[in-house]
Amino acid sequence: MEKEPLLMLPGPVPMPERVRMAMVRQAINHRGAEFGAVYADCVRVLKETFGTKNELFVISGSGTAAMEAAVANFGNGLTIACLENGKFGERMFKIAQRHGTAKSVSSEWGTPLDLAALEHELANGAEMVTLVHNETSAGIRNPAEKVGRLARKYDALFVMDGITSIGGDEVHADAWGADIVVVGSQKCLAAPAGLSAISVSERAWERLSEKRPYYLDLAAYRKSAAAKVMETPYTPAVPLFLALREACMIIEEEGLNGRIARHRKNAEAVRKAVTGWGLSLFPKTDSDHSYSNTVTATSLPAGIDDSGFRGMIRKMGIEIAGGQDHLKGKIFRIGTMGATSAPEILATLSVVEHALVKQGFRPAGNGVQAACEVLG
Amino acid sequence: MEKEPLLMLPGPVPMPERVRMAMVRQAINHRGAEFGAVYADCVRVLKETFGTKNELFVISGSGTAAMEAAVANFGNGLTIACLENGKFGERMFKIAQRHGTAKSVSSEWGTPLDLAALEHELANGAEMVTLVHNETSAGIRNPAEKVGRLARKYDALFVMDGITSIGGDEVHADAWGADIVVVGSQKCLAAPAGLSAISVSERAWERLSEKRPYYLDLAAYRKSAAAKVMETPYTPAVPLFLALREACMIIEEEGLNGRIARHRKNAEAVRKAVTGWGLSLFPKTDSDHSYSNTVTATSLPAGIDDSGFRGMIRKMGIEIAGGQDHLKGKIFRIGTMGATSAPEILATLSVVEHALVKQGFRPAGNGVQAACEVLG
Repeated sequence: MEKEPLLMLPGPVPMPERVRMAMVRQAINHRGAEFGAVYADCVRVLKETFGTKNELFVISGSGTAAMEAAVANFGNGLTIACLENGKFGERMFKIAQRHGTAKSVSSEWGTPLDLAALEHELANGAEMVTLVHNETSAGIRNPAEKVGRLARKYDALFVMDGITSIGGDEVHADAWGADIVVVGSQKCLAAPAGLSAISVSERAWERLSEKRPYYLDLAAYRKSAAAKVMETPYTPAVPLFLALREACMIIEEEGLNGRIARHRKNAEAVRKAVTGWGLSLFPKTDSDHSYSNTVTATSLPAGIDDSGFRGMIRKMGIEIAGGQDHLKGKIFRIGTMGATSAPEILATLSVVEHALVKQGFRPAGNGVQAACEVLG
Repeated sequence: MEKEPLLMLPGPVPMPERVRMAMVRQAINHRGAEFGAVYADCVRVLKETFGTKNELFVISGSGTAAMEAAVANFGNGLTIACLENGKFGERMFKIAQRHGTAKSVSSEWGTPLDLAALEHELANGAEMVTLVHNETSAGIRNPAEKVGRLARKYDALFVMDGITSIGGDEVHADAWGADIVVVGSQKCLAAPAGLSAISVSERAWERLSEKRPYYLDLAAYRKSAAAKVMETPYTPAVPLFLALREACMIIEEEGLNGRIARHRKNAEAVRKAVTGWGLSLFPKTDSDHSYSNTVTATSLPAGIDDSGFRGMIRKMGIEIAGGQDHLKGKIFRIGTMGATSAPEILATLSVVEHALVKQGFRPAGNGVQAACEVLG
């Protein structure tokens, strides 16, 4: 088998060997003490990454499953205001439509959220607010704390998708008043794809919907987690839990603050390279919105063909992401999540520069050296 | 780390080394050609094990997720007749209650289904029937073909839980008229826990519910599977797909018929041992119902303490299952699913006999030798 390409995507991301090796074990009984301890380890470390003291559960399903669990368990039949400035905000709106009366509060992808429009919806009776903290489709980081304050002012539940920020950027769920918060395993946590986690505040529990789904019924998760031996209500994806536990141990060893500082430095290095070449970062930031610290979205310069550009990069063993939906061919995205370090970033930037030049672009300056200045 | 106990449970089951090793690979992009080919391999082999030419999808979620997908996508708001003679039949009823008007058609656990009562429900307008083909909680195999004929007679959709029969016993979804059929990964397929698969007939697609969940929306699965590169709508549990593909390759190499014959022989060996000792098999069979070919449920003789009995077995490195819910302390269950072969079965039976004797039971005859006669 050929070597796997280096994935510099906004997830999935390369996993440390320890994480991968944790999966090869023989099957264990998921109703036993050993599995219970694995689950408890995950919960302990994840609570720290969420910045929460609330109950937290690990779901055998992707981040989308956890997003749906949030809305389906606490928003059934409610009016839900969905903040959107990218693909995942839109997805949250679609999920909300399946379970309640969804109100889209949208801005162009990668532009600041319309918080005035949100307040209007809240004043008009929205009982739940959904936010994507770090919108990978556009490389923008949204002001969770402000959204939380607005939600609390109108006594609405605040659902926060922290899928691509938690474990790589600062998240303070409790301080921000985020009632229900979710993360995915294959992003900043650097674990395999297939798991998600969700935290639930007391305030949310008090508003638990009568009508709930079965597989994603968080009341069942709560009951099973509180059992003498901690467990999940239905069969969990055991190898993925073993890997997630290992990924959590790595986070504890690195220290959360150090890990966040590393993610910030890595993203800054990519931004410095991009602007050093004379390219434009895609998102429009303001005092509330900043560039994502886990993925960098850059506008593709005029005349560069996306598939030729990324194909050339892939041929050299690296995968970066293009744009999604209407941004296809208009932006490229470099993920710097998880265990990513200087060598992968510098190799990626070198290849990106090479592909840009081969496609006819003339860099304004030496982006790779600009990145080295940040990383050094 | 101590050696893992030998799991002789009705799932999870020990996995062949090839299956476990398939998970250690570095992360791959689940939107690429390689993942598409992995998914396609799984679908090809699973269709054969289901006995279907219908579309089939792999879900990142346990068998319970697939059971809910069946009811939530095709039974929303319908009247659903749920056949029950064990825990999983009851679970199906609970799931049906969340999405439609569920009618329980129940018998005592481990006793024949009440097909006359089913026909009554169908004549009174039930539009969907749910059946657990192989009820592991009681060790009984239910008459799927007969249920399928009844469902068709009244033009109802037939949902079959084949979670613990498919890949280990004969299943002919299309010949039996089973419209929606599900399997779990950690049972007879001998793959890790965390995935399930679901097949859907044309007849079912024509009745797709308007209101559907999001993560388990099978219309989204259908669309993604039909893409140029086969994919899943949301991030799949990639390492589990890699393992499932390997498990499917092993099924192809063994040959489905040989695999089923092996499962039948293994279960027969356990039954011969149990009856040879003078114990009673738990289920009450008739001309329609037979003993499960993947798990054997035995009544615990009077005076034997379940936790002492199974604790002694666990101390010797083997885990067998007790009874669930009201059968706790009343039966024990030995799973013979997946890659199980003579050595594991004979070791298990030897230890079970030892524990029975230590608990004061006097075997009527040599059960282990009776099993050898079958396995030889």
